[in-house]
Amino acid sequence: MKHIAESTVRRLSLYLRFLEECDARAQTTISSGELARLGGTTAAQVRKDLSSFGSFGKRGLGYHVSDLIRAIREILGLDKSWPLIIIGAGKIGTALALYRGFSSRGFAVVGVYDRDPARVGQRLDGLTIRSLDELERDIVRLKVKIAVLSVPGDATQALLDRVTKAGIRAILNFAPVPLRVPQGVTLRAVNMATELEILTFALTNRVESVTR
Amino acid sequence: MKHIAESTVRRLSLYLRFLEECDARAQTTISSGELARLGGTTAAQVRKDLSSFGSFGKRGLGYHVSDLIRAIREILGLDKSWPLIIIGAGKIGTALALYRGFSSRGFAVVGVYDRDPARVGQRLDGLTIRSLDELERDIVRLKVKIAVLSVPGDATQALLDRVTKAGIRAILNFAPVPLRVPQGVTLRAVNMATELEILTFALTNRVESVTR
Repeated sequence: MKHIAESTVRRLSLYLRFLEECDARAQTTISSGELARLGGTTAAQVRKDLSSFGSFGKRGLGYHVSDLIRAIREILGLDKSWPLIIIGAGKIGTALALYRGFSSRGFAVVGVYDRDPARVGQRLDGLTIRSLDELERDIVRLKVKIAVLSVPGDATQALLDRVTKAGIRAILNFAPVPLRVPQGVTLRAVNMATELEILTFALTNRVESVTR
Repeated sequence: MKHIAESTVRRLSLYLRFLEECDARAQTTISSGELARLGGTTAAQVRKDLSSFGSFGKRGLGYHVSDLIRAIREILGLDKSWPLIIIGAGKIGTALALYRGFSSRGFAVVGVYDRDPARVGQRLDGLTIRSLDELERDIVRLKVKIAVLSVPGDATQALLDRVTKAGIRAILNFAPVPLRVPQGVTLRAVNMATELEILTFALTNRVESVTR
């Protein structure tokens, strides 16, 4: 598989959340219609999303909740634990390091790094902020594949180059700059200013929907 | 205009950032090719993006940097200042309230709200965390159109209903739950767990690109 629409993965992620809620309420089966309603989509879309990854559910009986949870977790790669590192211990980096939602979904923050000597050595919950000098060694030693970049824009590309050379294969970037990634590395960007600009664009142009 | 692709707005936002950098370096003109290279797209795409909003640039001469900055700021609605409120003063809400990038782009955080009486009254930089009881009055008084929701998932829909009734027309939601919005209200969702799941999906399925 070489190419997939983000919207499909987003919906799988959303279905998983609903299924986990059903499971917590001891609901054992669910119809594609119910899943569709919860996810704001159609039953046909739910069936299409799931059928591209295998055969789930029985006509008239719906999906078995815990089986489907296991299947989607496997599709999303959440059946294993992913160590991740956060580079940049500013406000966003710190908020992310302290965010408990990660561990509940199989992500373990194993390192937080900063270039500022005044920050290095400070504690963040169970972690100690480390120097950027430790980056390559830690990535190799802990077999880290995912890095979150929350550093100033002008420092981002050089750090991306360093960490991908050391073995990082997926990047979540918070700096408002476009980055070049080597082949085989997946890059995602989150930018608060851009999100707000999409809103003001919609407010200004009376757009009713902005589609992904 | 009723409908627009998010990717177009994202690119406009990116072009604007580059143009501002050019302007800061006192560069007065720029070609669509240069803008394309900086934005990781093609010259044809740049011309197409801009031409849907008017006529800019001259064949062979390129775009006048400061004119194009003014035009894109107008298209994105950034030629005016937007008061915004943040509801939920947890870790994400606090990080956003303290984020200086907003004000530099015309967004002014005019209120931060929390339901926890222990947080109400605390200071966040120049702001005092306010009670949810003040929401409607403040939205009307300050003519706020944009709200950031960073509250627990189960509280989100009820708050969205309250603020849209009071006049909010655009929402940026950080809770990992789908929300219903009244007609005429634009909703954007940012979800860190989903972003990471798109990465692990790509790592697990050896996907080379995930397209928006």
